[in-house]
Amino acid sequence: MIKVDLNSDIGESFGTYKLGLDTEVLKHVTSANIACGFHAGDFMVMEKTVDIAVQNNVGIGAHPGFPDLQGFGRRQMKLTPQEVKNLIIYQVGALAAFARAAGKSLQHVKAHGALYNMAAKDPALAEAIAAGVKAAAPDAILLGLAGSEMVQAAKKVGLKGAQEVFADRGYNPDGTLVPRSQPGAMVHDPKIAIPRVIRMVTEGKVTAINGEDIDICADSICVHGDNPEALEFVHNIRTALEDAGVKVVPLGEVMA
Amino acid sequence: MIKVDLNSDIGESFGTYKLGLDTEVLKHVTSANIACGFHAGDFMVMEKTVDIAVQNNVGIGAHPGFPDLQGFGRRQMKLTPQEVKNLIIYQVGALAAFARAAGKSLQHVKAHGALYNMAAKDPALAEAIAAGVKAAAPDAILLGLAGSEMVQAAKKVGLKGAQEVFADRGYNPDGTLVPRSQPGAMVHDPKIAIPRVIRMVTEGKVTAINGEDIDICADSICVHGDNPEALEFVHNIRTALEDAGVKVVPLGEVMA
Amino acid sequence: MIKVDLNSDIGESFGTYKLGLDTEVLKHVTSANIACGFHAGDFMVMEKTVDIAVQNNVGIGAHPGFPDLQGFGRRQMKLTPQEVKNLIIYQVGALAAFARAAGKSLQHVKAHGALYNMAAKDPALAEAIAAGVKAAAPDAILLGLAGSEMVQAAKKVGLKGAQEVFADRGYNPDGTLVPRSQPGAMVHDPKIAIPRVIRMVTEGKVTAINGEDIDICADSICVHGDNPEALEFVHNIRTALEDAGVKVVPLGEVMA
Amino acid sequence: MIKVDLNSDIGESFGTYKLGLDTEVLKHVTSANIACGFHAGDFMVMEKTVDIAVQNNVGIGAHPGFPDLQGFGRRQMKLTPQEVKNLIIYQVGALAAFARAAGKSLQHVKAHGALYNMAAKDPALAEAIAAGVKAAAPDAILLGLAGSEMVQAAKKVGLKGAQEVFADRGYNPDGTLVPRSQPGAMVHDPKIAIPRVIRMVTEGKVTAINGEDIDICADSICVHGDNPEALEFVHNIRTALEDAGVKVVPLGEVMA
Repeated sequence: MIKVDLNSDIGESFGTYKLGLDTEVLKHVTSANIACGFHAGDFMVMEKTVDIAVQNNVGIGAHPGFPDLQGFGRRQMKLTPQEVKNLIIYQVGALAAFARAAGKSLQHVKAHGALYNMAAKDPALAEAIAAGVKAAAPDAILLGLAGSEMVQAAKKVGLKGAQEVFADRGYNPDGTLVPRSQPGAMVHDPKIAIPRVIRMVTEGKVTAINGEDIDICADSICVHGDNPEALEFVHNIRTALEDAGVKVVPLGEVMA
Repeated sequence: MIKVDLNSDIGESFGTYKLGLDTEVLKHVTSANIACGFHAGDFMVMEKTVDIAVQNNVGIGAHPGFPDLQGFGRRQMKLTPQEVKNLIIYQVGALAAFARAAGKSLQHVKAHGALYNMAAKDPALAEAIAAGVKAAAPDAILLGLAGSEMVQAAKKVGLKGAQEVFADRGYNPDGTLVPRSQPGAMVHDPKIAIPRVIRMVTEGKVTAINGEDIDICADSICVHGDNPEALEFVHNIRTALEDAGVKVVPLGEVMA
Repeated sequence: MIKVDLNSDIGESFGTYKLGLDTEVLKHVTSANIACGFHAGDFMVMEKTVDIAVQNNVGIGAHPGFPDLQGFGRRQMKLTPQEVKNLIIYQVGALAAFARAAGKSLQHVKAHGALYNMAAKDPALAEAIAAGVKAAAPDAILLGLAGSEMVQAAKKVGLKGAQEVFADRGYNPDGTLVPRSQPGAMVHDPKIAIPRVIRMVTEGKVTAINGEDIDICADSICVHGDNPEALEFVHNIRTALEDAGVKVVPLGEVMA
Repeated sequence: MIKVDLNSDIGESFGTYKLGLDTEVLKHVTSANIACGFHAGDFMVMEKTVDIAVQNNVGIGAHPGFPDLQGFGRRQMKLTPQEVKNLIIYQVGALAAFARAAGKSLQHVKAHGALYNMAAKDPALAEAIAAGVKAAAPDAILLGLAGSEMVQAAKKVGLKGAQEVFADRGYNPDGTLVPRSQPGAMVHDPKIAIPRVIRMVTEGKVTAINGEDIDICADSICVHGDNPEALEFVHNIRTALEDAGVKVVPLGEVMA
């Protein structure tokens, strides 16, 4: 039976600032990428988010990012690989401690924002991230963009590497994402997006922006919980997957 | 044979800013309280400090503090017990990950600065710290001011609690430290300080500021490595302890 | 003709985090207390908020707070008066630069949160704030709790001091606010709150929690813009004031 | 009579962390670039540094940088021009307030570290910086790398632009600095460096790394105060300039 994971970035509130419909989205996804206090989240939000994830049997993941709260980790910063490795160890360790406090272990790690995007293309950064995860949480799965340098880096350091696809993004023929600044970057229509995802999961294929079919490996699908429409989309995609005979389970079970 | 630990606060540099003679002091002490990035330290300093500690067979401890780099964690902040518990989990988890990356486990936790001082007298804060340690690192030793609320709190949550004495501080008849603003707060003369420490360790007694002898339990002695004089004092105190037949070992061994 | 100012705390968003209905509330109030990047706000939010205030002919005020974004400036921090003076200079200077960039000068300064509350009762803190404002913006008005130490401190350093009343708070017989933790702290019913405010402004009297009438000076009324109900209340209070023959104008005009 | 300014980056301490021999270097230089709390410095350090500068009749400048204390503003961050403009306004405003508190006005602004280097080559960044200075301190001089985009940007927005040369750096034939990673980047020998500087100031010429003489405009010379050798160099360069008949004065006087 085909299995796939649904993951979402959550725990992105900070202090008095609320972001995302975490409680709702955690009812629908199977893995949570929880912000670790650098680009979003704080030690109160982390505790609460881990608890809600545990209550919903959602796999707990660390979602480390650049140390840039104002920029929400979306601004590029030029850090050395050693700096990246260590910021991963720090953030993964912090989140893992909240998981432990809740009686769970860390399921996975997924880098956030600019760090995720830069590492997808930069082998040195990707390896720095993988080395950090290997050092701090050697049993965790490293989740990265399907077909990217992250997947290679996980293999290189001896981590389980999982591949992530996006329900709402266009793909270039080489498997990279169409940049948000270009036409075709987003796939907004659920009538197109949902069958696309089903096909990625069941056939391992997606139609790139030039019309060409390319191979893609979908261990996990990234979805969002920012607003009611996003939540409805998550619900619909899960139902569609299950109707297609796909088992939607936490990433740890997909990779077992 | 009587055993005692020598501990020092280290890893207090930040970015380009250097503080303390860490490499030197780590040759003399047996346990290191390593700053965790809130009041001092950062993810680069933490990695490097753990490595030097490991090279010197020094027990690795987390030294969490208030989130106040400018104030070096010495300014009082009014946080709720739940906030304190969670900032402990966060910082302990981060430091434990660097210990793990270096192939070690966390030996102990000691709170820093204003948090340490407030918790020594405030049972709710002390318990919040102990609960955080218990949640993040249940096998770690909680090191607190001898005879203080921290010792009670460790016992209450089921942690090993170790008691700390100060070589250079005066004591009130109730076992609390004489505040730095009052006469008698500091014991600067090594000719007085060193025999005082020997007596605390070997007899469990110290002369309080009013001349009265009081009971004190010395599992660990706090020393400093800020300057060459401090280093010489650490060296001398260790030699004097060994000459008195005391075994100077990491806290884990003292409490075993 | 009696004049009064309506002030509101705004510009409290940070990075990707949005807080408050700033655009809406700025249509109704006459003075804006704009966060300065320590407890809330950042350099992008400050620019935008000043611009909207200018478009609405709202008086521009700096709203400095403790350096504690996670705690939103509501957690007490024990800073020295010299630290408080300097954090005021820093934040007031930063906000005044955005005002200048928009072709305006700073109308007033109002401390935020824990700093505001602590200074209302602590003459040393109040004077530190006043000294900071005097140093950075000697022509600005210092807005503080009516009858509090802030009013004295403004006078002492030679600043114009303006007195603030709260539409939604209960008063003790000595003119201090009933703490939020006690019964009678809040006055939620607009049918009670609005006539109360009218009376404070027109008669200089308010009924304290024990039923006694006390004197109060209302140069400015603090209102909120957090949600649609709050906005409606602001609209209603303004209409009621105008119906009662009170002129609602920026604080600078009240104090002229 | 030829005039030139000697400038140095100072006020780079933070909280308990000390950096630089500020008190000493301020006896020798004529302009101070004072850190503004983002990459270094804080509101206590700023106050103290401004005071020492005033006591030594040194021109007061703001030295804004990226919001990156850990990286000391030396790590590249990808910010939009609007973000750069606003971080300049914020930091310049804050420093100008301390100048005002000390009875002085802001003489100049010089960007720091990665921001300085990026803006030297990037017209959009350079213009963002210049626009920020123009908005916050329209009478201040903008100090930038001689011959760089910063000089053009100052002109474009209607600011006085001053050109800075480095006593200890090699120059490419196009007037840019030889990157630190390449041979010839540094000119360490005072016997070479000092005559080089004299010639830059008196003849407007410097020998580039390929042996070619190029034109250069030296309104101000950047020197350092990190250590006793650096201080001695500053002393020697000033003496040599004066012996060569050059008047060493604050930047405001050079540009008057």
